[in-house]
Order: sequence, then structure tokens, then C-alpha cells
Amino acid sequence: MDKPKLFTVGPTYVNDDVRAEMSNQMFSHRDAEYVKLHKELIEKLRKFFQTQNDIFIYTSSSTGCMESSVRNCISEHGTGLSMVCGAFGKRFNEIIAENGRNAVRSEVPWGKANLGEQLEEALSKNPGVEAVTITHCETSTSVLSPLEELCKVAKEHDVLTLVDTVSSMGGTEIPIDRLGIDFCFFGVQKCFGVPPGLAIATVSKKALEKAATVKNRGHYFDFLNLKKFNDKHMVPYTPPMPQMIGLSKQLDLIFEEGINNRFERHRKVSARVRDKCKELGFSVFPDEKYASPTLSCISVPQGFDLKGMYAKMNDRGFVLASGYDKLKETTFRVGNMGNVTMDDVNEMLENLEEVIQ
Amino acid sequence: MDKPKLFTVGPTYVNDDVRAEMSNQMFSHRDAEYVKLHKELIEKLRKFFQTQNDIFIYTSSSTGCMESSVRNCISEHGTGLSMVCGAFGKRFNEIIAENGRNAVRSEVPWGKANLGEQLEEALSKNPGVEAVTITHCETSTSVLSPLEELCKVAKEHDVLTLVDTVSSMGGTEIPIDRLGIDFCFFGVQKCFGVPPGLAIATVSKKALEKAATVKNRGHYFDFLNLKKFNDKHMVPYTPPMPQMIGLSKQLDLIFEEGINNRFERHRKVSARVRDKCKELGFSVFPDEKYASPTLSCISVPQGFDLKGMYAKMNDRGFVLASGYDKLKETTFRVGNMGNVTMDDVNEMLENLEEVIQ
Repeated sequence: MDKPKLFTVGPTYVNDDVRAEMSNQMFSHRDAEYVKLHKELIEKLRKFFQTQNDIFIYTSSSTGCMESSVRNCISEHGTGLSMVCGAFGKRFNEIIAENGRNAVRSEVPWGKANLGEQLEEALSKNPGVEAVTITHCETSTSVLSPLEELCKVAKEHDVLTLVDTVSSMGGTEIPIDRLGIDFCFFGVQKCFGVPPGLAIATVSKKALEKAATVKNRGHYFDFLNLKKFNDKHMVPYTPPMPQMIGLSKQLDLIFEEGINNRFERHRKVSARVRDKCKELGFSVFPDEKYASPTLSCISVPQGFDLKGMYAKMNDRGFVLASGYDKLKETTFRVGNMGNVTMDDVNEMLENLEEVIQ
Repeated sequence: MDKPKLFTVGPTYVNDDVRAEMSNQMFSHRDAEYVKLHKELIEKLRKFFQTQNDIFIYTSSSTGCMESSVRNCISEHGTGLSMVCGAFGKRFNEIIAENGRNAVRSEVPWGKANLGEQLEEALSKNPGVEAVTITHCETSTSVLSPLEELCKVAKEHDVLTLVDTVSSMGGTEIPIDRLGIDFCFFGVQKCFGVPPGLAIATVSKKALEKAATVKNRGHYFDFLNLKKFNDKHMVPYTPPMPQMIGLSKQLDLIFEEGINNRFERHRKVSARVRDKCKELGFSVFPDEKYASPTLSCISVPQGFDLKGMYAKMNDRGFVLASGYDKLKETTFRVGNMGNVTMDDVNEMLENLEEVIQ
């Protein structure tokens, strides 16, 4: 990995080949050359996701996908439920309210996962819920909630599932169709290691049918408009073509590595981070049973000089991520999304050991 | 210019230096390095625009800016008026309606400009209008409507001005503060010659004050959220960093060329296109008094083989833009936005002459 060595939680390190490919000259987004790019990219994504759902190209960050799902999958005066176990689950819930929908939430303390029985209880309490938002990997706490049991409960209640896989997609298996995820989205700057500016979402037939009944969906994030153009291998407006080119190249590299090898690498590297951090006298912030394979949130002892640690690591060329929101003063985070190898992380951990001693 | 030579209406040709700069390694969007990039970019844009207004970074295409302006500058059940003289003015009006606002429009035949007296009449007929949308350069017809008289009338009626400068900003002078433009937006892939994926908008104090009174502004395009982060030299979510880096570099190149030299180049090159096309037996589609200096919409004689012309020009490495929407079969368009020089256009026109003979 080049210096500085990024153990951030996105944007993550971008391979030279991807950056080189992205620096190609532009062409018109209404030409045959574009249609070819769009078509090939969707085919590669479909192979990766193993889904029959539509796959949309969003000219936005992942937050735009949240707004899109809310405006299309919850009626104008309908109710959306959010499973919350950290800052990003909370944001998803706020976006429901900010778009004029009725927002309810079911919350567990930070560090815990959202579980199926919790969703069961929340849906029983709120019988009118049209869609539930789930944060698969909660980037603020590094918890990976169990998608399978959550989706199972949602399906039993015939509620749409809107799933934030921003910091998990590409780093762990998410069988979209088998789980029954109606709307699944992520930004390319996390586990896919592409520069930011492009988000991708899969949209089920059921979600599209729902959208057709929802008023005031707006224009920019309207499912039906996106689908109309997607069916022609286009986007309604000018998309972030360099990032699309980069993602297409990155998917080639991912297939070369092997999808399962990639997941295994994430799992092993994150386990190494947690084990070594415990050895160094830190502790793992989340319930370890639900620790994400893509990033780790690490608690430091009281009075520990976090700022000093970041500065010393920066001097050595390593960038760690600070704790998020209310965990800023008590935790730090280590991202291993995308292209981070065991060698990269071992080198970083050796330096961390020297720095804190 | 490299082959293929782009005379499209965006994405336009990108300079080698800009593409090289964009291929740099990524870094965190919450780090000091990002803050420096954001701050410097805004300072350069402010110098270019000569405005005291806030300047927002949109992680979207220009269409996202349209939606943003509608959701922030027109009350939930308020009325927006659109001045329409082509396809993009119509789209802006539809976005008002699609966001649940009351949309009225004042239309002239395609090829004509929207004028001050037309706006005066429309505002007199619709006394409740909160904001007027104006398409400065209508990309479908190549008409440049006279902003100064339109803004003057809007100001007299105390109506907010939402101005689409997508295909004019960077190619002709738009003195934002002097004209009194409340919301002025464009995408970087037109006259700025940067790959697509980033839009920029200037937002007046008055527009921000209005937004504070509007309910249901959503989250992603909310002025107040964008301003809160912009004041810290950040964006609420991960922005398209490569395009920001590219735009910053491109602005350096623009200042080197000289802003006024750049405008003069656009004016002269577009005049050359129109003159030569008339010489070749075509005619200029719009009212020439309002012909844009950034692109030209050219009418062909009845029965003229447009498809054959595009194909033959493509074989020679030149890409022209087809007519838009209802003008598809009767016109073609020549973009000269961004980096197109007189030599480029002369070479293209010589080839065009050979091709049609």
C-alpha cells in the first residue's frame, strides 16, 4: 500500500489500475460507448450480488439512496420503522421524518446488534409500518446486525426491507434475493475501493410496485424514472462516469481475487485487528459476537491520549479513523475495507504497538 | 484535441492535466487535507463568480440542484413559476410539480428567448408566485435568455430567482450578485470541462432565509444542512472528491487563460460555427439575437440525412450532438463548451464541409 496507509472507514485506498482507468477521456452519456459501459457494469454487479432485482446507478452518496428509498417505499403520510444501534441507523430514521413521513424507531444501546425478536416486538407495537430500515454494518460502532433473521421477520409481516450495506457490501456475503432485501444500497468508496461520488442500489419488484402507488416521490430519486432509463442502459441525467469506469475495473480485480477469498480476507484481517488490540490492552467496543469483518471500533482505557496516538501514527504514515459522535473520546476505529491485506494490517499494528509504548 | 474530438454538449473534453490530477490517491473527507481542498475550491469559485453568496458542493448532477432549489425555495403548498423556451425549462417546471408544489409556466415557442415583459405578464397573472425558474442557456435550442431583464422583473416582484446556468456558466459572464440571482447552479462537465458527477450552486442569504421557513425540505438537498457543513469547509456526506480536485485544477487553468479571454473565445468560436453552417446551406435554429456562445442548434434542410452525417463525422473522429427531443429529426447541435478552440472548430467544420458534399 502507498503511504499514507489508509485504515479509514472510507474513502478507502484505491488500486493504481482503477485510478489509471478512471483517468480516461470522457464521452457522451447518450452514446453507444456509454450504453456499453452501463450494461457491462450492471452485468458485473449482478454477478457479484447474485440478484434478479433491478440495479440502479445513483449520482449521489449513499445518503441519497436513503432519501430515495424513503420517498419511494413509504406513502406520503405512511409510517417507516428504523432499527437503530448507532449513528447511521439514527440518520436513516431522521431522513424518514425530514421527508414528511411518520418515523418510529426501535433502539438498542450502542455496541449491541439489532435482532429479529426486537423487530418482531417493534412491528407488533406498530401495526401500520410500511417499511423497515436496517443498518447492516453500523459504521459508528462496527456492529454487524444479523440480516437473515431481521429480513425473515420483516417478510412475515409483509413489510419492505430498506437495508444500508454501506460499509458491509463487498466485504461480506449478502445474498440479496435469498434474504428478500427490497432495497439494498452502498457507496463505492468503502469495501469496493473506488473514489466517492457513486452509489449503487438493488430494487425489488415489490419496491417498484409500491413506488407506483406513492405520491410526491420527487424527481431526482424517483424509482420509476430511474427504472425507465435503466431499462435503456442509461441514467436520467449525467452520471459520475469516472467512478462507473473505476467500479467496472475494480469488479474485474475482485473476480480475479475471487469473491469468497475477498470475504475471507476481510474476516481474517478484522479478527487480527481485534485480537492484537486486546493484546495491547485495548478492548473491542461492540458485542464481539456481532463484530463486523470490515472495520473495528476499539475502546481505549480512561485517560488514554487518543490525539497523541493519531498524530504519532500519522507521522509514520498510517491513518486511523477516530471514534464517531458520542464515541469520539473513548474509541478509535480501524477500517480494513476494500484492499487492506494482512501484511498491511500487521505493519500498522506493529507500529501501533511501538507508538503506545 | 485528442480523437475522438468532442463537440458534444457535455460531458466535454477534459484536459490531460485535469485528468492526471484526478487520478491521485484518496484521503478521508473528514481530514485536514479535505478541508484544505474544499476551502481552496470555494475560494477559487468565489473569485470566478465574484459573489458573496454561499457556494455549495452538490454530490449530484445539475438535476439534483433543481430538486434542491424547489424543495427549499417554494413552500410545501406554494407556487413556482417556470419560464420555458425548451426541454430543460419544461423539466424544471415538472420538478416543481413532482415535489408536490403548485407549478405554473410561461412558455414561448422553441427557438425564442424568455423575455422580461413575458415574466412581467406571468407574474401579474399569478400573484402568489414564490420563486421563478429561469433556464439561462436552453441546451435543447441553444437560446440564451437575457438574464438581466428577467432578474430585474423578478426582483421588482420580490420573487426568488432559481437560475439554471448548466450550459452557460464558465462560457459567458454571469454577474451573480449584480443580477440578484438567489440560486444559480451548473454541472462541471459542460463549460468547465471536468468529468461529470459534481454540481455547484450559489445560494443567496434570502434563499437561505426562505428555506428556514419551508417544511418538508428533505435531508439530502436541504440548504440548512448543506450550509451547516459548508461553514466547516465540509459536505454532510462523502462528496465526489476526484471531480472536486479536477475542478480546482481546471480553475487554475482558467485563471491562466484569463476569464474574459475564455468568454471571448466561446463567443468567437460559436459565431464561427453559425457562420460556416449558414455558408454550408444550413440555418441557425434559434432567434440569432439570443444565440448562445456555448453551443449551436443548427437546422437541416428537409430530407437531409442526419444519421449519415453523424456516422461519417464519427469515422473521421468528430462527435457532434444530435437534436434534442422534438428537434431530433430536424436539427443537430455543435457544442463549443470548455476547451474547444478556434483551430478545433475549423478542423471540424472543414471535415463537415467534405462530408456533406
